[in-house]
Amino acid sequence: MELDKTLLKDEIVHRLNNLTKPVGSLGYLEELALKLGLIQGRVIPELPKDKRIYVFASDHGVVQNGVSAYPKEVTYQMILNFLNGGAAINVFGRHVGADVYVVDSGVDGDFNISHPKFINAKIGYGTSDFTKGPAMTKEQAVLSLETGRKIAKKAIEEGADLLVIGDMGIGNTTTATAIAVAFGFSLDEILDIGTPLDEGGLKRKKEAVSKALEVNRPDRDNPIDVLEKVGGFCMGQMAGFILEAVERKVPVIVDGFPTTAGLLIAWKTNPQVVDFVFAGHKSKVKGHKILLDAMGLRPILDLDMRLGEGTGAALSISILEAAIKMIREMATFESAGVSKGSDNI
Amino acid sequence: MELDKTLLKDEIVHRLNNLTKPVGSLGYLEELALKLGLIQGRVIPELPKDKRIYVFASDHGVVQNGVSAYPKEVTYQMILNFLNGGAAINVFGRHVGADVYVVDSGVDGDFNISHPKFINAKIGYGTSDFTKGPAMTKEQAVLSLETGRKIAKKAIEEGADLLVIGDMGIGNTTTATAIAVAFGFSLDEILDIGTPLDEGGLKRKKEAVSKALEVNRPDRDNPIDVLEKVGGFCMGQMAGFILEAVERKVPVIVDGFPTTAGLLIAWKTNPQVVDFVFAGHKSKVKGHKILLDAMGLRPILDLDMRLGEGTGAALSISILEAAIKMIREMATFESAGVSKGSDNI
Repeated sequence: MELDKTLLKDEIVHRLNNLTKPVGSLGYLEELALKLGLIQGRVIPELPKDKRIYVFASDHGVVQNGVSAYPKEVTYQMILNFLNGGAAINVFGRHVGADVYVVDSGVDGDFNISHPKFINAKIGYGTSDFTKGPAMTKEQAVLSLETGRKIAKKAIEEGADLLVIGDMGIGNTTTATAIAVAFGFSLDEILDIGTPLDEGGLKRKKEAVSKALEVNRPDRDNPIDVLEKVGGFCMGQMAGFILEAVERKVPVIVDGFPTTAGLLIAWKTNPQVVDFVFAGHKSKVKGHKILLDAMGLRPILDLDMRLGEGTGAALSISILEAAIKMIREMATFESAGVSKGSDNI
Repeated sequence: MELDKTLLKDEIVHRLNNLTKPVGSLGYLEELALKLGLIQGRVIPELPKDKRIYVFASDHGVVQNGVSAYPKEVTYQMILNFLNGGAAINVFGRHVGADVYVVDSGVDGDFNISHPKFINAKIGYGTSDFTKGPAMTKEQAVLSLETGRKIAKKAIEEGADLLVIGDMGIGNTTTATAIAVAFGFSLDEILDIGTPLDEGGLKRKKEAVSKALEVNRPDRDNPIDVLEKVGGFCMGQMAGFILEAVERKVPVIVDGFPTTAGLLIAWKTNPQVVDFVFAGHKSKVKGHKILLDAMGLRPILDLDMRLGEGTGAALSISILEAAIKMIREMATFESAGVSKGSDNI
């Protein structure tokens, strides 16, 4: 039976304050344990048993404008690298005991492969260049959200109880920037390189986003319109994925700037999602922190990473699990026979 | 055969830049991998096989001045909690696969226990109140350093290849503050609560440190004199422990403010130690970052923790191991058939 939320919160805080440590001395870990307890509806949360990382990959038509230092083919090549287990996200997934699933959200190329962790959810062969018109049709935008929901539904029905999302796709930070600006964030404040890019490239990135907004005039109060006009297939699927996971009360860890743009679409649809979402890390892409702050999410790690793929989020699992073990395994003052300090509650 | 250091550094950087990711995109993880490679003298570092956490515990005579909210007995009680496996450091030690050893550096009380992880290295029954005279004798200061060295020597001879130090002892942040001020750091900048403490307590802490400096006039150019006049048995042993580990090229992770005061004594003795030391986290105790900055150490985690015991350092092991696995397990551009970006080296 689920406890009333206020009562549950009081019970969790009481438990945290009675562990053998000064009140609040485990800092953010205590907040993480509280949030996980509230999500699970338990004073003492369970450890996740089926952790999964979903890397959503797609191509972005805007790359035609020279906004990335990498050729578009890298999106396709990196998917093969993911499936072969050689990418950073594979290494970190193994490190934290999470399986890595690779979703073809809309890569420009066909994968004639059968692999247990490969999910064909292709919406199209990359988006259209949004400096010239909408990135996708309204039908594609709606389909992106729906397929994202289906992927989460299947994962959870199979037993997944902790989900990580990652993004891969040359041009993804340009699309993420366009989404953020469409929702009212300042382009000047958010603009940054994703992967290494020279001054000229950064200037082209800024121009492409400005033009996208000018040409498409997305409606900032309509997340589907934003997705259609200046979005990406992966961002639409991540938004749907988050919305479905949250309805099923399964926590989701977001990674860097592109995944957080996906979260932004979900948040604009249902602001309650952030109660179920964790920010795995603060990326070095400067707009990332701005988006997280707007949604009231504090990143767990801050390691100057800017790779994507879900890498920062994956590493944060170790910290989340430590927070759970803290409240599950630590002795209380009473059980350990330790005196409480005068300022203890 | 060990490679020349500059050559080795070039080789590690070359390897890092050829992993399938944009150059530098794994941020601080890449620096950690480089530092570990240089310590081990290998391009591709080995994962640690025998990780150990040593919690140095002692009492501090200065607690007579009302500088802590906790009664002194808690030091003794917490040691029993450590040995029973119920403290935060036990939980996190298990989480990261590290054994927790408990060192009685100088607790005011006898432990009539035989426990495989308990080390009796008692220098005395707590230090003297350093507001009235030296914290310990010169012989005790020298003995602290020597016994700390012996503990590290034994650990490494038994196979330990990654060491964490933690500190426990009511009054330890007051002693750590006195050590830092003795070495020339500003009392006003460093002064902070360790465990929860009211305004009056913080004022008494400041007065105690001021008085300690005035009464004892430690020689800032002589680490042993600082230890004798205003130090603690645990800080002396941690300093010796670090010096020995570094001479044997075994990395040490320091935790919060008191362990970093121990490191400060080691660093003033041999400034090279920081090449072998990692700062596991940034504690919420404000002086901690000031000391780390002075020694050029960047903390791995920043979770507003202020518990001590080695807890922040222990959690950082997961990140350090991820850095090692990154360089060990990731595919290179060549091996994975992925195109390099135009800005790649």
